[in-house]
Amino acid sequence: MRQRAHGGNLAWASALAGCPPSAIVDFSASISPLGPPRSVLAAIESELANLRHYPDPDYRELRLALCHFHQLPLEWILPGNGSAELLTLAGRELAGLAATVLITPAFGDYYRSLSAYNAKVLEFPISLERQGKISTPIHGENSPLFPFPLNPITEKFPTPKLADIPQEATDRGGSPASVYPSKRHGLLLNNPHNPTGKLFSREAILPYLDEFGLVVVDEAFMDFLPACEEQSLIGVVQKYPNLVILRSLTKFYSLPGLRLGYAIAHPDRLQRWQSWRDPWPVNTLAQAAAIAAVSDREFQQQTWAWLPPARKQLFEGLAQITGLQPCKSAANFLLVSSQQSSCKLQEELLKHHQILIRDCLSFRELGDRYFRVAVRLSSENQRLLNAIALVNNL
Amino acid sequence: MRQRAHGGNLAWASALAGCPPSAIVDFSASISPLGPPRSVLAAIESELANLRHYPDPDYRELRLALCHFHQLPLEWILPGNGSAELLTLAGRELAGLAATVLITPAFGDYYRSLSAYNAKVLEFPISLERQGKISTPIHGENSPLFPFPLNPITEKFPTPKLADIPQEATDRGGSPASVYPSKRHGLLLNNPHNPTGKLFSREAILPYLDEFGLVVVDEAFMDFLPACEEQSLIGVVQKYPNLVILRSLTKFYSLPGLRLGYAIAHPDRLQRWQSWRDPWPVNTLAQAAAIAAVSDREFQQQTWAWLPPARKQLFEGLAQITGLQPCKSAANFLLVSSQQSSCKLQEELLKHHQILIRDCLSFRELGDRYFRVAVRLSSENQRLLNAIALVNNL
Repeated sequence: MRQRAHGGNLAWASALAGCPPSAIVDFSASISPLGPPRSVLAAIESELANLRHYPDPDYRELRLALCHFHQLPLEWILPGNGSAELLTLAGRELAGLAATVLITPAFGDYYRSLSAYNAKVLEFPISLERQGKISTPIHGENSPLFPFPLNPITEKFPTPKLADIPQEATDRGGSPASVYPSKRHGLLLNNPHNPTGKLFSREAILPYLDEFGLVVVDEAFMDFLPACEEQSLIGVVQKYPNLVILRSLTKFYSLPGLRLGYAIAHPDRLQRWQSWRDPWPVNTLAQAAAIAAVSDREFQQQTWAWLPPARKQLFEGLAQITGLQPCKSAANFLLVSSQQSSCKLQEELLKHHQILIRDCLSFRELGDRYFRVAVRLSSENQRLLNAIALVNNL
Repeated sequence: MRQRAHGGNLAWASALAGCPPSAIVDFSASISPLGPPRSVLAAIESELANLRHYPDPDYRELRLALCHFHQLPLEWILPGNGSAELLTLAGRELAGLAATVLITPAFGDYYRSLSAYNAKVLEFPISLERQGKISTPIHGENSPLFPFPLNPITEKFPTPKLADIPQEATDRGGSPASVYPSKRHGLLLNNPHNPTGKLFSREAILPYLDEFGLVVVDEAFMDFLPACEEQSLIGVVQKYPNLVILRSLTKFYSLPGLRLGYAIAHPDRLQRWQSWRDPWPVNTLAQAAAIAAVSDREFQQQTWAWLPPARKQLFEGLAQITGLQPCKSAANFLLVSSQQSSCKLQEELLKHHQILIRDCLSFRELGDRYFRVAVRLSSENQRLLNAIALVNNL
């Protein structure tokens, strides 16, 4: 069976736990425990009769719903078969540039999408030194790269200055490589950042739009922040033809099985992406689900009411366990550093408690001393805390 | 609204017909009128609770079902988000060769997938001269290219000989271009052929596997032929590492809205394709649907029992209408030549009868004097025949 590089690989987990996949409590995938919304399931069921028809290749109804939701013109939105499909198209676009800068530790699928088109990758470690959580940045404390100036507002760091932009970076092999952020370079980052959960302010990212040829901001977790707190760049996208925003309905509405995301960018770019893919990437049921989801204000309010206290409960519970230290997060997951092996913890939790946490082996800079957990319902969070305490005492 | 390049664009059609999409009788998309099977809809509904989980990135259960169905090892099958997604990956592969030969008139999506990666296209017209239906091959009767030796067995033509392989072809602009079918060239064709419905024998295609570097056979309509008649290359795929077979569950099981197809090819090639795309291209519901579909022997038998008499009814009815002449077909659709404008006929049928037929404008060689219709239920076929007769008498 394929080594799990992503969260949510229940087939692998259930084999190890010796139970059916449905019996696993999945903290590994950062999916809301509240969904899917009833409105979405009803929309899917009422659409079953339309499976015998091809989807509208314009996805007009879907794009109208998304445009209305974001207050954007229709042609600035391109739906996709999960944001992962759109990330692949972004990878092809970025491969046309001299190199793409990743903020590390970076979501493993970024490397996948960039290597699919042989794009050159340059890495900048995210600044976490105030917490002392990432003790050894990948190029050492003396590296001129450290810290990357994109300090997250989660930590109340000051807004970075353009003068702070590093003049050098290294490629994945660690070799020095000159990089002067320019129109020949791309920047790919997520906000909030995965796996740390850190949030960059809008103002912290904006200067890079003047420096880089293409900036791709993956906002897969941004909808977990209510309007008064979110830092999306959607509001300024029409001013920046070199900006691409990726959004997902997977996490917030608990629909990873349905495959639904969308890109927001200049119409010329989206038309080019469309020419690179097949005519019907989004299935009929996903289209209906998305229209229902963005209209479900009640579900959105419930989610914003659930997350902060549930995250606080989980954060404080983890912080009280000897040897563990969670990072503050603006998203629906927590990165946790562990004095013991996370892989061993993962295995024990699966075998004895049917609980799946996310090891961080796919984040090269983190390795075995970190794990990530989704924030779930209060009772489930407590079950995780109890189980970890029991495993710790073995 | 986007010009319809494919069949089944009901949004466009319903706007023209002034009725809801559900009121349109769709003869434009070559989809079985018998499905989706009840077993498939039940499988989808029972899977709704799993939408909150990511699909298994190995798609192991799905691949096991398909392998069992085709008697192939697991690693020879790659599921996709409709065969259109896999065609795009084939386009990337073919773009690495000097040029790809298309049998024309060719399905419009072949040009799309090849141009997505700037592959060079060479065109060979299919041999239809015995019927006198395609009166002017694109390069003229004097062209050494005509006829392409891949004569379909639908017409009981002799098996082609390798000596017949043309030594020259032209590019899309009509300029002469040397082509000696070699390992540097690719061949992309469908069997049965779309839009003519002609069937090539297995033996007619096999010689090209020794000549071309890569042969992609789109068998999207092959499952409409029962075991005793089908000419699939699946049985020999393990002997030819340069063979790719594309299959679809869209047409036979009436599931174009769900997006489900698969490629059958050498494991090394499929692993490379996997590295070019996102980890979860097939949604959870499509996976469940496919497993149910290939197991539904009763539905398969019903389809094989329905098609021949329904196709005969439609063929004979069309042949009796002045000015129309259908082509004999092995698939679930008929190509019809018309002495009058097909676009005008399409418009009249939509406006006055809520019937959608497929114009052939996307098939450059056919143009306005051809249309294509799916074979549907007997009563629907009769409704189409009556409507055309009425429009003809206007």
